[in-house]
Amino acid sequence: MYEEISNERKAFLVIDYSRGFIEYCQFKAEIIKKGYFQSRVRIEEHHRQQDGFIHAGVMATMADHTAGYSAFTTVSKDFQILTIEFKINFLRPAFGDALVCRSRVIREGSRIVISESEVFDIRGEEETLVAKAMVTLMVVNKEKLVQKG
Amino acid sequence: MYEEISNERKAFLVIDYSRGFIEYCQFKAEIIKKGYFQSRVRIEEHHRQQDGFIHAGVMATMADHTAGYSAFTTVSKDFQILTIEFKINFLRPAFGDALVCRSRVIREGSRIVISESEVFDIRGEEETLVAKAMVTLMVVNKEKLVQKG
Amino acid sequence: MYEEISNERKAFLVIDYSRGFIEYCQFKAEIIKKGYFQSRVRIEEHHRQQDGFIHAGVMATMADHTAGYSAFTTVSKDFQILTIEFKINFLRPAFGDALVCRSRVIREGSRIVISESEVFDIRGEEETLVAKAMVTLMVVNKEKLVQKG
Amino acid sequence: MYEEISNERKAFLVIDYSRGFIEYCQFKAEIIKKGYFQSRVRIEEHHRQQDGFIHAGVMATMADHTAGYSAFTTVSKDFQILTIEFKINFLRPAFGDALVCRSRVIREGSRIVISESEVFDIRGEEETLVAKAMVTLMVVNKEKLVQKG
Repeated sequence: MYEEISNERKAFLVIDYSRGFIEYCQFKAEIIKKGYFQSRVRIEEHHRQQDGFIHAGVMATMADHTAGYSAFTTVSKDFQILTIEFKINFLRPAFGDALVCRSRVIREGSRIVISESEVFDIRGEEETLVAKAMVTLMVVNKEKLVQKG
Repeated sequence: MYEEISNERKAFLVIDYSRGFIEYCQFKAEIIKKGYFQSRVRIEEHHRQQDGFIHAGVMATMADHTAGYSAFTTVSKDFQILTIEFKINFLRPAFGDALVCRSRVIREGSRIVISESEVFDIRGEEETLVAKAMVTLMVVNKEKLVQKG
Repeated sequence: MYEEISNERKAFLVIDYSRGFIEYCQFKAEIIKKGYFQSRVRIEEHHRQQDGFIHAGVMATMADHTAGYSAFTTVSKDFQILTIEFKINFLRPAFGDALVCRSRVIREGSRIVISESEVFDIRGEEETLVAKAMVTLMVVNKEKLVQKG
Repeated sequence: MYEEISNERKAFLVIDYSRGFIEYCQFKAEIIKKGYFQSRVRIEEHHRQQDGFIHAGVMATMADHTAGYSAFTTVSKDFQILTIEFKINFLRPAFGDALVCRSRVIREGSRIVISESEVFDIRGEEETLVAKAMVTLMVVNKEKLVQKG
């Protein structure tokens, strides 16, 4: 259903996906196609709230970041992706051993890309849809982005 | 403009605010009134992206969690607050030394509370509005919530 | 994929769907299943903007209202559905002869229902996805709703 | 607080605001400043639902359209404004004689503008905040927009 992208680009995106805050959150790229990005995190105590449920912020960060990388698969390496906004609904509580996020581009574009993320809670053999997000992304020429830090 | 709440309740909320994933993210409660909650985080390298900007997920998590606690200030201790959904717009890049989040209830209710969060980037003496969120929260009787883990 | 609902309930929902502002907008119910609602509008000049495109407000109203009725198919006749909030992304300009809206419940509940609406632009034989919405709905006991007017 | 814009531009925006679907909905421009737009509608039976409350679609259309025109006040006449997405929370039921919508730009930009709309229900002498929206808008060069119809 989704086209393959080059192994070189895939290798770059796998590494690029897990840096900074995302490395700190331990999210990892899993499956990468043109217009599709899947990520996973093994849940540790620090991903949870005091009541044992996985924190909404973990799911929101994963939904946003993975959506951004689904957009990355549709542009050349001269372009960067920025999140303009996102909206996420939490459908059910998450309390499993891992989360998987599946993001797909629902509207490609040279300036604006729209992606959708579904976050699944992995409970043993089963997976349950626990959150769904719609993400509006902006495509920016890398040269126009000033690096910070 | 905002009423005070009891010192006991305030002390509870300060501690309760910073547990699990939020402790891991190092967000701290700062100012608590009835219908208002302010939090702060000193930015470390692990809050940033590879390009030095503060990650959208940091701002989203802070906006969601602080909005939830603004709702907590309007209910008695028998109730728990859950996020149903939120939407966040990223207005400008954030790259400062700290973030401050100010959340206020814009619609109180016994079942549904709506809060708004504004995230400010602290750059030396100045603060700049970098993200704004609208958060829909559900008030749940604690006894109906099953604890996990 | 979707279960049937009773003919009596269906007949009620068809009529109930097209009243007040929705009648004024000329939206009509088309297909009704448990958890699914489809509506249609034949586009007239008054649905358009000055530039000939169909107005975003037409699509938003259709996405909201049809989502509400998808929730209606999951509750008994003692309950009313209210929109708490929705978010809609406009994916492409719409300029066809009709719009079709397909709404489906993605999270059932006795208090909160979440539905998704997809709006398609009908251009001759083809249909194109032009807008997508996520809608948070509240289930309210009819007796608790005070009638107005 | 808001700067004035030229009378010529204001006169253009007043007329441009109320065309097509918006004329059909009878919304009218009221106050126009740089970064601010206020509109009003006198409520008729066709704006209501069967239960007498004003339809969510009326408020959503007003919030979106007025936000768009708040953005219009920040760009020159060579540019058009398109809605990318919006999110609206319905805070309280609306049942008054008129609605007033106040939209203000919270982030100016040459490509992306973010505006916020507040919809007030006019009940005799009082006004009550009944809905609040955040709207993401795109600035497009008029020459790049193909007219339809």
